Amino acid sequence: MELFYSHDIAGITARLDAEESGHCVRVLRHRVGDEISVIDGLGSLFKCRLAVADPKGAEAEILERVPGFGAVPYRLTMAVCPTKNIDRFEWFAEKATEFGVDAIIPLVGDHSERKVLKSERLRRILLSATKQSLKARIPALGELVSVREFLKSHSGLKLVCCCFEPEGGRKTITEAIRAAAPGTPVTVLIGPEGDFSDDEVALAMESGWIPVSLGASRLRTETAALAAVAAVYFACTDNEDSTI
Amino acid sequence: MELFYSHDIAGITARLDAEESGHCVRVLRHRVGDEISVIDGLGSLFKCRLAVADPKGAEAEILERVPGFGAVPYRLTMAVCPTKNIDRFEWFAEKATEFGVDAIIPLVGDHSERKVLKSERLRRILLSATKQSLKARIPALGELVSVREFLKSHSGLKLVCCCFEPEGGRKTITEAIRAAAPGTPVTVLIGPEGDFSDDEVALAMESGWIPVSLGASRLRTETAALAAVAAVYFACTDNEDSTI
Repeated sequence: MELFYSHDIAGITARLDAEESGHCVRVLRHRVGDEISVIDGLGSLFKCRLAVADPKGAEAEILERVPGFGAVPYRLTMAVCPTKNIDRFEWFAEKATEFGVDAIIPLVGDHSERKVLKSERLRRILLSATKQSLKARIPALGELVSVREFLKSHSGLKLVCCCFEPEGGRKTITEAIRAAAPGTPVTVLIGPEGDFSDDEVALAMESGWIPVSLGASRLRTETAALAAVAAVYFACTDNEDSTI
Repeated sequence: MELFYSHDIAGITARLDAEESGHCVRVLRHRVGDEISVIDGLGSLFKCRLAVADPKGAEAEILERVPGFGAVPYRLTMAVCPTKNIDRFEWFAEKATEFGVDAIIPLVGDHSERKVLKSERLRRILLSATKQSLKARIPALGELVSVREFLKSHSGLKLVCCCFEPEGGRKTITEAIRAAAPGTPVTVLIGPEGDFSDDEVALAMESGWIPVSLGASRLRTETAALAAVAAVYFACTDNEDSTI
């Protein structure tokens, strides 16, 4: 099954941009009348019939809409300090999309070495991974924001992965999710390679973030971020009764 | 904390090879008398004092042995068909090592596009990830073997990740682990990009492999393999009572 993406869906017509049109008509050799599947990147899949087989501007007639196609049974925002080596962050973005994530927010912490981020390449990776993993919703990519600012602005189940053992200890992500009300959106915060600063940790505690542990293994930033996604994914899909 | 690797530990002396010696003496500028940590790759860490600061052949005197350093509370063999794009399999090997895995066995299935594998580069990745994640045991890397041969030869908790829904359904990895006797070694089988052949699936069922699901998301081969590692990791570290 091949998915095409359209950001121009109106009435019963889905228009593909030049890149998607080329892939549909020139590479996959679809002809007028062929059935194709188009996603809107917002959560819906449209079963369509190709109406205009123009390799620079193809158009498809919508036959049926499938809302929530490929959706996961949880709401997850991953707020992650991008790695110095951007490949590792891009890899995380791809894999998180395959599991299922609603938003990725890149953060700059006091100890971050990376303070800039090109979002264009990341957006392409998110789109490609969304299509490849047969989902209809492209994860939102936030603007780069400081850890301090982000800490103050959030609601829902707010989890911060930290390496230190704070007063009162740390829960696992599974425990934190099971203790929350079903349906609560989850946000997980992952610090930079140099970890959070003491000030950031203090602010997180003041702002009601729950410190969580990812187990005993020392994981790289991007591995920790993906481990958190996997933990939420398994906590919410392994058992129906724990689905949030 | 920086770990060095030695495959030549005898009596109270750990000898570093040329590469590790260069890193220790030339790059990190360790001098005679400095305390360094050396792993044997088999599970033990040795606290040492540098005795010979030769950048081509350093030697350290062992002060203390720490067995089981960085060990995980489970025994896991990942038997995985390597991806066509070898980067993706290498990435899996690195990340699986960070979480903790005892052995990685590359397999060739009926539908495998990749039928050869250079193990030298993979071994370097496994060593590097072991040191980076502060573990003392380097995962064993098996020889490339056919899925059929592998299916017949294994014991312990044998799980096969499959995309189809077999008669009797599929458990999750967490359920399968919780149903097994504590301490049972786990083996997880991951098929190639083209999935297992019908013959392989039939052979797996005959040979007592348990079909397991990784949830509803469609994961790439290497993502599925890492998801399985994460599932075992969390199932065995999240709750003390489920530790196997």
